[in-house]
Parts: sequence; structure tokens; C-alpha cells
Amino acid sequence: MREPRQERSRTTRRRLIDAAVECLAELGWHGTTVSMIAERAGVSRGAAQHHFPTREDLVVAAVGHLGEEQIAELRARAAALPAGPSRALPVAEMLLDLYTGVKFRAALHLWVAASTDEALREVLVPLQAKVGREAHRVALELLGADESRPGVRETVQATLDLARGLGLANLLADDTNRRRQITRQWATLLEPVVP
Amino acid sequence: MREPRQERSRTTRRRLIDAAVECLAELGWHGTTVSMIAERAGVSRGAAQHHFPTREDLVVAAVGHLGEEQIAELRARAAALPAGPSRALPVAEMLLDLYTGVKFRAALHLWVAASTDEALREVLVPLQAKVGREAHRVALELLGADESRPGVRETVQATLDLARGLGLANLLADDTNRRRQITRQWATLLEPVVP
Repeated sequence: MREPRQERSRTTRRRLIDAAVECLAELGWHGTTVSMIAERAGVSRGAAQHHFPTREDLVVAAVGHLGEEQIAELRARAAALPAGPSRALPVAEMLLDLYTGVKFRAALHLWVAASTDEALREVLVPLQAKVGREAHRVALELLGADESRPGVRETVQATLDLARGLGLANLLADDTNRRRQITRQWATLLEPVVP
Repeated sequence: MREPRQERSRTTRRRLIDAAVECLAELGWHGTTVSMIAERAGVSRGAAQHHFPTREDLVVAAVGHLGEEQIAELRARAAALPAGPSRALPVAEMLLDLYTGVKFRAALHLWVAASTDEALREVLVPLQAKVGREAHRVALELLGADESRPGVRETVQATLDLARGLGLANLLADDTNRRRQITRQWATLLEPVVP
């Protein structure tokens, strides 16, 4: 009996996390309640609160979990990349598209809400730092870049900050065409950091 | 009698705009009401509504006005910049610090609220495009860059998207030191576009 119960529990958590991201992205922090997330997940309110006692617990777990999932996806695609400087363009595409989807939209609602909500800020700041460090590490791996060379660290950091800026530019209107042109130019700037 | 009344009217509008930006940055879109803005501005609620019938009118006017003011400030500082490639570092500093203050914070609350609010989105999208185009033009002027050269347009666009990403990174915690290092590296990437 033990295995299936753990399995069910994992499935419930996963459903709640997916529903929390959808609610946040569609309705924002102020429009999202635990009841709404539970309903969308097809889970009772009591079961939702068993897994995540507060709305903060649930949405922070959701954003943290999906940040890690996104990084794992990037890592899985690393093996298929070409070697040498021709790596720069596909890596630029992967990284600069990173924050244009529903996961970034959900996270952005949380960040902005946290800027006027001390309790939310306290849990989000360390999470944001952790996910940011992991994103930096995976960007270095994808590029095959050597951080001990002068300027490489800052160029890789700038790539991720640019990606977040492009995510913001894509928030209210589809910015894909402009982003593609920036990405091509960005790849030429990244080439010198690829060995 | 006509001049002083116009003068008073301008002063009232200006006070409301400043108060609206402060309220948005501190309390967010969902925490901001017209009454609150009027109180902070020292203006009656009726007078506030005479100038700006709705909360949307007021905050959108505020963000648009301050975006233009910020661009005018940049333009005013252009004359003091050195000529040639040594221009790259001070311009990188000016542009990459552009979205780290209270004005960006206020605008960000609006953008994010607009992503789940169709009426707000309709007024913000054209405003964001207009202010974005002006920021692009002033960035070209500051760099003295020639947009007809290949890659220059995209590099300047990337600079402003990076600046917005850095604004986001500065939202929940002071990111000045990291931003300074990125700015120095960015200036070396900008040097080739400065004639």
C-alpha cells in the first residue's frame, strides 16, 4: 500500500504546482487563491492545504520547481549542440527564449508582488538567487565557456539579464520577430567566449 | 487671471503624477486608489478626477510623462560625454542604470497588471511602444551610432532590453555591484558601434 500512496501524493503535488503556475500567469498574484488552484488541479481544498499550508508556500514551491525543471531541460539539450563557435547561435536561441513563456509570466507576477509584500520577498529572494545561480551554471555549460577568462563571467550574466529583459518585452505583445534579430546579433557577440 | 489658473492646473497635474508614481512603486497597482493618490498629492478627490477621470488615466499619464522626462534628462547629459570609443563606458552606465529606480518600479507594476487586464493592456501597449522607440533613438544619439551599419540596431536594442532585465534584477534586492561589473564588460562590447 505504501508505494501507491506516495505515488498519489506526488501526482497531487505536481497537479497543484501546474495549476498554481497557470493561475498566476493568467490571473496574477492578487487574483489567485488556494481554492482556485485546488479546483483547477481537481484536488480538494483540504488536500491542497495538506501539501501546501499557505498560498505563499504553494506558489513559491511552484515557481522554484519549474525553474529547476527548465534548467534540467536545457541541460538535456546540451548534448545535441554542435562544437566550437557555431554553438553560439543555438545557445543564444535557447537562452534568449528562456523567459518568454508561461513560467516566466508566473514568476514575474510573484516578483512584482514581492516588491510590495515583505513576507513574500523574504521567501523569494533566496529562491531567486538559487535559480539564478543554476541558470548561470547551465549557460556556462551550454557555451562551454571558461569563466576564469576575463569578461566571460559578465558576458554570460549579461546574456541571462538580457533574456529576462526580452521576457518583459514579450509580456504584453508577441515580440518574437524582434527577438530573433537581436538573438542573431547576440550570437556574434557570444562567439569569442566559446572555445 | 488666466495665466495663474493654468499655472495652478499644471502644478496640480504634476503633483498628481508624482504621487501616482510613488503610490504605484510602493503599493502596486492593486494597492493604489485615486483617493490615495489625491491625498498624497494634497489635492481633493474631485480635483484629481477633474484632471484624470479614472485610475487608469492617471497612472498611464504618469508613467508616460515620466518616461519622456527620463529621456529628456539623458539627452541633456549627451553634451558632456567624451568623443570616440571612450564614450562607450559612460553611455553604458547611463543606459544600464536607466531602469533601476522608482519610475521603472511603478511602470513594472502597471505592465504586469496589464498582462491580466485587457483594458489596461490596450492603453499601455501603444505607450510602451512609443516610449521604447524614444529610448532607442536617444541611445543611438548618446552612442553617436550609425544604425545603417549591420548589427548596430540590434546591439542598441539589446542594450535597452538588458537594461530592463537589470532593472528586474534590482527589484527585490540591491544589485548595484553586480550591475557595475556587467556594465564595464558591456562597454567593451559597445565600443565597436561608437564611431
